[in-house]
Amino acid sequence: MNHRLLLRTLGHTLQLEALCLLLPLAVALGYREDPRPFLFTLLPAALLGTALARLRARPYFYHREGFAAVGLVWLTLSLVGALPFFLSGRFGGYIDCLFETVSGFTTTGASILTAIEGLPKGLLFWRSFSSWIGGIGVVVFLLSLLPKLGDRSQILVQAESPGPVSSKLVPRTARSARILTLIYLALTGAELLALLIAGMPLYDAAVNTFATVCTGGFSVLNASIAGYGLPACEVIITVFMLLSSLNLGLFFLLWTRQWALARKSEELWCFLGTVAASVLLVFLLLIPGYDRAGHALRDAAFQVVSVVSTTGFSTADFDLWPPLARLILVGLMFLGGCAGSTAGGIKFVRVILLVRCARRSLRRFSSPRSVKVITLDGAPVEESTLNAVFVFFLLYLLLLAAVSAIVALDQVSLTTSFTAALACLSNIGPGLDAVGPAGNFAALSGLSKLSLTFAMLAGRLELFPILILLSPSAWRR
Amino acid sequence: MNHRLLLRTLGHTLQLEALCLLLPLAVALGYREDPRPFLFTLLPAALLGTALARLRARPYFYHREGFAAVGLVWLTLSLVGALPFFLSGRFGGYIDCLFETVSGFTTTGASILTAIEGLPKGLLFWRSFSSWIGGIGVVVFLLSLLPKLGDRSQILVQAESPGPVSSKLVPRTARSARILTLIYLALTGAELLALLIAGMPLYDAAVNTFATVCTGGFSVLNASIAGYGLPACEVIITVFMLLSSLNLGLFFLLWTRQWALARKSEELWCFLGTVAASVLLVFLLLIPGYDRAGHALRDAAFQVVSVVSTTGFSTADFDLWPPLARLILVGLMFLGGCAGSTAGGIKFVRVILLVRCARRSLRRFSSPRSVKVITLDGAPVEESTLNAVFVFFLLYLLLLAAVSAIVALDQVSLTTSFTAALACLSNIGPGLDAVGPAGNFAALSGLSKLSLTFAMLAGRLELFPILILLSPSAWRR
Repeated sequence: MNHRLLLRTLGHTLQLEALCLLLPLAVALGYREDPRPFLFTLLPAALLGTALARLRARPYFYHREGFAAVGLVWLTLSLVGALPFFLSGRFGGYIDCLFETVSGFTTTGASILTAIEGLPKGLLFWRSFSSWIGGIGVVVFLLSLLPKLGDRSQILVQAESPGPVSSKLVPRTARSARILTLIYLALTGAELLALLIAGMPLYDAAVNTFATVCTGGFSVLNASIAGYGLPACEVIITVFMLLSSLNLGLFFLLWTRQWALARKSEELWCFLGTVAASVLLVFLLLIPGYDRAGHALRDAAFQVVSVVSTTGFSTADFDLWPPLARLILVGLMFLGGCAGSTAGGIKFVRVILLVRCARRSLRRFSSPRSVKVITLDGAPVEESTLNAVFVFFLLYLLLLAAVSAIVALDQVSLTTSFTAALACLSNIGPGLDAVGPAGNFAALSGLSKLSLTFAMLAGRLELFPILILLSPSAWRR
Repeated sequence: MNHRLLLRTLGHTLQLEALCLLLPLAVALGYREDPRPFLFTLLPAALLGTALARLRARPYFYHREGFAAVGLVWLTLSLVGALPFFLSGRFGGYIDCLFETVSGFTTTGASILTAIEGLPKGLLFWRSFSSWIGGIGVVVFLLSLLPKLGDRSQILVQAESPGPVSSKLVPRTARSARILTLIYLALTGAELLALLIAGMPLYDAAVNTFATVCTGGFSVLNASIAGYGLPACEVIITVFMLLSSLNLGLFFLLWTRQWALARKSEELWCFLGTVAASVLLVFLLLIPGYDRAGHALRDAAFQVVSVVSTTGFSTADFDLWPPLARLILVGLMFLGGCAGSTAGGIKFVRVILLVRCARRSLRRFSSPRSVKVITLDGAPVEESTLNAVFVFFLLYLLLLAAVSAIVALDQVSLTTSFTAALACLSNIGPGLDAVGPAGNFAALSGLSKLSLTFAMLAGRLELFPILILLSPSAWRR
């Protein structure tokens, strides 16, 4: 392990985090709130970061080091980012603060807060802003930071880019990082504007935009988006949740008028088809319980998109919905959004490949001599890629089972323990039952919270960088 | 499709079923019960079977025909076997009778009966006996019947033998069928004797032995094995459930003193280790709720073995157990027993291979140039076998999701719909909540019952023969 380069990378991380903390500090000062939780985090982080960033080191990482570094960067961001919450004394013990911060940086949106309203606006701003930073981190953060560290460090990018098939965009360099940043910023600006026009106050529009564009889902109201009672804003947020769970590369293709290439994306059509079918089905299941069909449709669309995009906002307590509607939402929690987005979950492209493998195998049983190469967007997919997808899926399920088992020790219902683990691993936020939209993660034990924290990180970084941190071979020199 | 040979195969099936029906007929006559439900099934089956068996046909099946034929044989057995229940008028509508019969022949043991005690003994005998026939079918029935039909028909055996890796026993011919029959009969005889010595009446000892050796789990008491209040019998049944979920080939190896070969079975040690660890964990979780530790241990061992062997007997209502204990049982429901047994589920050998694939993949991430062949019992495993295991696992989960969704339409809890589907697909019997040990499947809709019936068949035949029946290409000439 190249420890010096690792420390230097963490130094740059701390510098950037200190810079990011200036914004919530400004908000706190603007609302005349106590600025010390931010100052006492920001200053040491900046000093330590600058000291570490001056270290001299061999300028490259090996493969496994790159993977380990991604995991450590995320962990450091979270350990430091939790300090303002902890120092404020309003968020409970450090484990609770860490849970909330990891939930932010991993764009999960699971919360241990039982009474959100009344908390200082600066802290809630940092909470929402951290998930927006996490989102930018997924597509851009390390992309623009790490190329400076040496040629081999694009491994980091590979480790982090969500989805098994690399985007056809442009070679993943600082240039593509800039393009993706612009798209991310454009989405942020567009939603902010739309919400302001629809009548949401500036502060709320900002924090909700942060939480939407990164598919995070932190809200500053106990009742989440339902608390505003603004149907127009619900529709706007639905649209932007959907946009944010598409491959961001698609916007680049549309912008450069490469329609044909964009239209060829099988993942896009499969995703949109699944969302449409799920909305329709849930809508039909909801009608009997609603006075107006329009309202049922709005809630169905909002919740389906909220879950499949792994945002986790709510406009209705879907834990009270009919069983099949809940089961559809649980199914969508597995799927997640498209590759190349900030969404979590298994991702549609992987599911498409898995289903095609199953279909091929069935066909082989009825006509054993048929040989069929699996294609995606018209191009053949390597067997080694399919194997990696299978193993990803398997590890996902194993981790889900392990975390569910730990949460089950808290004497909660099976639905609670299972959906808590799933909602964290898929970076969604709320699950069902005790951790449903009307509940939260506060009542769980410290052990459960730490396991769920681990699940959020593992899910965000697509398992491998986090699982490698646990393997002793990664730490040998 | 070689339709004539298919019909002839079904003819032999009907002849054998008519023969089997003589035994419950004798029981009914012995207890002076109405023999007509049996007579009115037996006679037409024998006549039609004999007519069909006289058909002349090309004496071989192609690959896909073999798979389809296995599915049809099981379906025919069940459709005809349900008639005595239906004709008696004591089991409800035909769908209920079919559910109960498929549950028997697939050695599942899921029941729609709400009040078992008081039903005619002949019918209950047929119910338990059918699962014993199903068990013999899994390892032997088609093995001894079908070699007569032509050389190619050992495909049928391949289709049906549980587990992806063929046994090292002896070439799977009529000889191995005879050996396996003898082992099955020896287990049956040994358990019957043990239960009689332990003080169980003959009739009860017979039906419970039938239900144990085939890992079926039908009981003639509403409270299942708990209803006898005989701890010695509980221990005996625990032991025989465990033995019945081992690879029957192992007994042959032990009998021929090939200790070394038997000891080399990694599946065996993994299975026994998992069972021991689960019993210990569940025991520790149960202690606080029990007066005596011995009782807790007995219940823990009984339920763990009952679930992992996919038998489904109960001596305690494990739906009331602590959440983690329930979750462990749900995990075991996925696993099932060893390959080469009558147990259902995914089977341990598949799980071992899946876990080894995942481990190999993780190792590749930390040291990308490592190439490692996956081995089982010291021999390398082909990548195509691993692929088949992955696809099996995937189809298992897809089918589980689909059937859960259909059951969820009945407005039952998510735990009920999920575990009902899992318990049927893994051929266990009881699940949790409304379909737990204290509940049953009676309240579900006809659609749910048919889906669960399909799941039991698909699980029993390891998916492919049943899924192929749904594919149009199998039906082309």
